[in-house]
Amino acid sequence: MAKEKKVEQITDMEVDFAQWFTDVCIKAELVDYSAVKGLFIMRPYGYAIWENIMHTLDRKFKETGHENVAMPMLIPESLLQQEKDHVEGFAPECAWVTVGGSEELPERLCVRPTSETLFCQHWSHVVHSWRDLPCLYNQWCSVLRWEKTTRPFLRGREFLWQEGHTIHATEEEARAETLQMLEIYADTLENDMAMPVIRGDKTEKEKFAGAENTYTVECMMHDHKALQSGTSHYFGDGFAKAFDITFTNKENKLAHPFETSWGMSTRVIGGLIMTHGDNSGLVLPPKIAPIQVIVLPIAAHKPGVTEKAEELVSRLKAAGIRCKGDFSDNSPGWKFANWEMKGVPLRVEIGPKDMEKGQCVAVRRDNGEKIVVALDELETRIPELLNDVQQGLFDKAKANLDSHIFEAHSLEEAKELQETRGGFIKTMWCGDLQCELDMKEKAGMSSRCIPFEQEHLGDTCPICGKPAKHMIYWGVAY
Amino acid sequence: MAKEKKVEQITDMEVDFAQWFTDVCIKAELVDYSAVKGLFIMRPYGYAIWENIMHTLDRKFKETGHENVAMPMLIPESLLQQEKDHVEGFAPECAWVTVGGSEELPERLCVRPTSETLFCQHWSHVVHSWRDLPCLYNQWCSVLRWEKTTRPFLRGREFLWQEGHTIHATEEEARAETLQMLEIYADTLENDMAMPVIRGDKTEKEKFAGAENTYTVECMMHDHKALQSGTSHYFGDGFAKAFDITFTNKENKLAHPFETSWGMSTRVIGGLIMTHGDNSGLVLPPKIAPIQVIVLPIAAHKPGVTEKAEELVSRLKAAGIRCKGDFSDNSPGWKFANWEMKGVPLRVEIGPKDMEKGQCVAVRRDNGEKIVVALDELETRIPELLNDVQQGLFDKAKANLDSHIFEAHSLEEAKELQETRGGFIKTMWCGDLQCELDMKEKAGMSSRCIPFEQEHLGDTCPICGKPAKHMIYWGVAY
Repeated sequence: MAKEKKVEQITDMEVDFAQWFTDVCIKAELVDYSAVKGLFIMRPYGYAIWENIMHTLDRKFKETGHENVAMPMLIPESLLQQEKDHVEGFAPECAWVTVGGSEELPERLCVRPTSETLFCQHWSHVVHSWRDLPCLYNQWCSVLRWEKTTRPFLRGREFLWQEGHTIHATEEEARAETLQMLEIYADTLENDMAMPVIRGDKTEKEKFAGAENTYTVECMMHDHKALQSGTSHYFGDGFAKAFDITFTNKENKLAHPFETSWGMSTRVIGGLIMTHGDNSGLVLPPKIAPIQVIVLPIAAHKPGVTEKAEELVSRLKAAGIRCKGDFSDNSPGWKFANWEMKGVPLRVEIGPKDMEKGQCVAVRRDNGEKIVVALDELETRIPELLNDVQQGLFDKAKANLDSHIFEAHSLEEAKELQETRGGFIKTMWCGDLQCELDMKEKAGMSSRCIPFEQEHLGDTCPICGKPAKHMIYWGVAY
Repeated sequence: MAKEKKVEQITDMEVDFAQWFTDVCIKAELVDYSAVKGLFIMRPYGYAIWENIMHTLDRKFKETGHENVAMPMLIPESLLQQEKDHVEGFAPECAWVTVGGSEELPERLCVRPTSETLFCQHWSHVVHSWRDLPCLYNQWCSVLRWEKTTRPFLRGREFLWQEGHTIHATEEEARAETLQMLEIYADTLENDMAMPVIRGDKTEKEKFAGAENTYTVECMMHDHKALQSGTSHYFGDGFAKAFDITFTNKENKLAHPFETSWGMSTRVIGGLIMTHGDNSGLVLPPKIAPIQVIVLPIAAHKPGVTEKAEELVSRLKAAGIRCKGDFSDNSPGWKFANWEMKGVPLRVEIGPKDMEKGQCVAVRRDNGEKIVVALDELETRIPELLNDVQQGLFDKAKANLDSHIFEAHSLEEAKELQETRGGFIKTMWCGDLQCELDMKEKAGMSSRCIPFEQEHLGDTCPICGKPAKHMIYWGVAY
């Protein structure tokens, strides 16, 4: 029977990085386009990656005392307008429901672009006393933001995410929450997704609409552009005041509580692709790979080979490894290419010669290395190799990040470094919006963050020459 | 310090069942109202129940080979119109997005009321050969249906659900899938939620818009009304034809595949409340209760009591039980009422006298029975008691169902039985729509299902006197 499907070539990333990215999204069967621009279908393999990210985050949220809730998807226009900075930030990209059934609605309803206003209204109903605080809530949902240009994972008009929302009796507690959640994002990116991060503060210009502080974890992609991969916002009591949320504190006085919110989205799957992928397709870190090991029988028609391969699959599954065997009648070449495209961290091959020697051959997706594994050591060696791949991916990404951070002492130097080398350019900064706008206009870079780990690179802002307040990272961002 | 919150009385169910239901939803902190009619907020305790239902369903779906995906939330009007029966069924209750950002959209977009059309369009892209079949997909999401009258859980303009969608090479396989998924719903309702079901076929009038067959599991509530608790639809190749989905079969000929869909929603939480609840509030079956055991220290100020209670909590948690201690300074009376309202299956009390005797006292939520448990038997006795509660709830609900099924041989008899006794009325039926409409108009009952377990109650339809085709259940439904 003729093969009706074959693994086709993808564009090399050196030729066209954007096209390579789209090719991987489609050919690895992560997404499909829908009839509406910017709304993507997450296919089983793409969604399985998201499920693994969800599971690790959800576990960490619950371990730190958070509870899941479900807020409505629609926000009345008047409710969205209740906090002035917030509505200014989001109104331009809202999608509006104006008709319900056969009737024009008396007030149009926005499909949530984010849910601060909904949480605030709920809290105004249920928070009365210090005994009701803190509320540590999270929800898993999708949101709509009517963007002009769209790309799978990186920028959708709809995307899946989690949004955490918390409310506290004290500023101190709310600030600690904001940083705790940023650390959970950093941990998930670095230790589960093998994506090294830089932690820092967003500038006034780049912070979330309505926030006092926005903290961010920034990652560097293979093309040396930046991806903001998770943010955590401290709101002070601004939203509480706008929504008239009060509580009786322990001193029996009426007070406004303090809020936070924090989110991570399917955007990080775009980050995974652009951090680890190569010209053969996706490369997935074992900890979040839907399939960690693919077992391929070699010369499967020879007696006992298929049975032996099936036995390996069973043994690996019993050892807690997400493992699958490919017993289809596709050619070995097709299978190699297909499972490489899908980024499965380890391929395990077994054929008649291996069986004679009591071994199998493991092939690492990250570097192509072939490792002979004795069959009686399968359950110990394969998890070790998966750890090696996990570490190998992190190390490679960390080397890419570390070797693409450059120090600049003038706007011109920053611009030239970006154009010739790319990556994150670190400079001192006076803190003024005008210098940030100048950097954007003249060097094409936005501020990524004021890193928690500050360095003293000089005394003055290289853009305006005034005294410097912080060290800051600049970059070209997705 | 004065208690700022106390557990208030709820309306007795015998006085006003509808008000009792609403009181339980609010006082047990399951839901809150949002600013938009019919859109409810699921609070942590309500959502935790849904999470437990999701986990058991999701596990069963995956064990039977299904994969999760995420379809967009918006459907272009032209796409929704592609299958004629389907659009007729859903268009009257769609909510429409007409504005995106600052622009009027060229075509209005419906917020999904269900996603058959989206799955069909996707499959028209990716299904080409028998090798691509079956696709066994599911998604967890919320949908909008612009209902006129709304109630928490039972009828919302937005509700959370799962919708499974599958596509197969043969009719036989699709039909088997439809029944398999109905059986997973029946199993979940009966064995996890302690809600006995009647399985059957919906009539032409009651089936899903666009389906050839709709199978249902019907439950009986405490007030003897019916709740349709899960449905599974067989579509034949109707949708495939409407959406031009074809595949090359094993005989190398172009053919249309066969589809199914099946869904269960947060509506079943309404069912849980109305099946097991009582005048003290919610009663939850242990298998889906967020908290299975609440431990209360009695005379907590006495030396060692709090420590002992904490020890019990740790031991029960270590034994895999979802357990919590209430160490707040609320009075024991308040705590009893609060955890009864929340429906926690077992309350475990420990005080100084119990400690002397090396025991604790377990109190069953379902029947108030007090059981002395020796502390050294804690890890074996508590799971046994939880099983007893689970079984006790099922038995009580089954007795309610069995004692409220009545046989009628005329429309008048059916009407009188419904008015005097309530419940499900079983009769023979000719299969004609007119008799179904007559039963609705004259006796206020809709057809619930043509049960898989048929009985021969006579030869003629008691409504029109023509030859009978089936035995059918009638009832007043939520």
